[in-house]
Amino acid sequence: MGKISVVGIGPGSLDDMTYRARRTIEEATTVVGYKRYVDLIAELVEGKTVLDTGMTQEIDRCRAALKAASEGETVVVISSGDAGIYGMAGLVLELLVKMDEAERPEFGGVIPGVSAMSAAAGLLGAPIMHDFVVISLSDLLTPWEIIQERAELAAQGDFVTALYNPRSNKRVGQINAVQEIFLRHRAPETPVGIVTGASRTNEAVLISTLGEFTKEDINMFSLVIIGNSKTRQVGDWMITPRGYQKREPGL
Amino acid sequence: MGKISVVGIGPGSLDDMTYRARRTIEEATTVVGYKRYVDLIAELVEGKTVLDTGMTQEIDRCRAALKAASEGETVVVISSGDAGIYGMAGLVLELLVKMDEAERPEFGGVIPGVSAMSAAAGLLGAPIMHDFVVISLSDLLTPWEIIQERAELAAQGDFVTALYNPRSNKRVGQINAVQEIFLRHRAPETPVGIVTGASRTNEAVLISTLGEFTKEDINMFSLVIIGNSKTRQVGDWMITPRGYQKREPGL
Repeated sequence: MGKISVVGIGPGSLDDMTYRARRTIEEATTVVGYKRYVDLIAELVEGKTVLDTGMTQEIDRCRAALKAASEGETVVVISSGDAGIYGMAGLVLELLVKMDEAERPEFGGVIPGVSAMSAAAGLLGAPIMHDFVVISLSDLLTPWEIIQERAELAAQGDFVTALYNPRSNKRVGQINAVQEIFLRHRAPETPVGIVTGASRTNEAVLISTLGEFTKEDINMFSLVIIGNSKTRQVGDWMITPRGYQKREPGL
Repeated sequence: MGKISVVGIGPGSLDDMTYRARRTIEEATTVVGYKRYVDLIAELVEGKTVLDTGMTQEIDRCRAALKAASEGETVVVISSGDAGIYGMAGLVLELLVKMDEAERPEFGGVIPGVSAMSAAAGLLGAPIMHDFVVISLSDLLTPWEIIQERAELAAQGDFVTALYNPRSNKRVGQINAVQEIFLRHRAPETPVGIVTGASRTNEAVLISTLGEFTKEDINMFSLVIIGNSKTRQVGDWMITPRGYQKREPGL
């Protein structure tokens, strides 16, 4: 019987991967993942069996991974960022627990990685720092009504808000609807950070405002971070204070 | 003129640190951080100047770090987990931008790390997976009314919810108040994961329920993850499905 692990490879560069993640990949005989993410770790997969598929074939990919592990391979399923945040950890576990015990491979665990959100935040300075909400605008598996309601609650609670999958070729209007929701609760001057391809060769970082940010270049590899009512832009940095006091003593 | 960087060292073990974080620490001449976190990377700081202080002297710590960098040192300020999530990134930047340009050291950036939340989630299986909220229950710098309102909104929106600083020696009742808020919106059987000291030698992982979890051992090094209405416990794992469809085709 083989073994299967789920690994968060971090946002892009091998430099932003953890030692544990790299070792787990190096020890594997089979690497499974979305082609674009396998390409990010190309130098680690040489000589290994690679099962890569398109973005939407996740269930097939998991099944293939479990089958290989069942047949004796040491398998890693990779996600970009952290595998537990809109990644592959859940699907792998859901399918694993349904397998007959006789066929079920050993589970090597979910190896956490630096999330896309943490990578984007680091490039923007310190935009999170306080309580925050993370919402995916993809309505592929979640009804749009739920997404909208969540945006409303996030705006209402003055949460710093990170938006995953803010816009794709087929899905362009949602980000504008979310902007309108937030504008009912926060000033148009509120800083909004847009980071595309963090830690990758085409990395782009931009600070805009709640009133204007939807005019910018935003795609499926972008992460949008909307500041709370205390967030300020200072020079090239987006900074959210760590508290709600008018003035911290000593600051 | 020296240089200052802010580094997220990850949740605990050097294994869960990124290559970039480790290199940045190795290149530094001065390491600044809360003593408990400096101890986690003891083998990396040998031969360096170490400025460690208690948990609540963060502003003093930042000033000392900036002064050293101003005087020519290569300084890293470390946070456990990710430096941008309740970490030191914000304070360092706030103080840096206020310095006279003549004294201001070069800024080496915020180097992201694996957050405590990602580490905890990995140990629990796949509890996050969908939209989520992160709230700190520490009322040191945030009024308790705001924290309560945010918990209410998180519960209402069926967000998976991660609680930082859930309980300390001096602050014991808040977690019970939050439990009551969530029980008004979610079933008492909702899985709740408690991870204490993730990736450290005293690591403890437990899955309880919304109705019962406050009876467990929870302290300032614990992270609590409350599942959404779809989260299930299967064996040793806490799994949140990635969507809201009754049944995903193929699953």
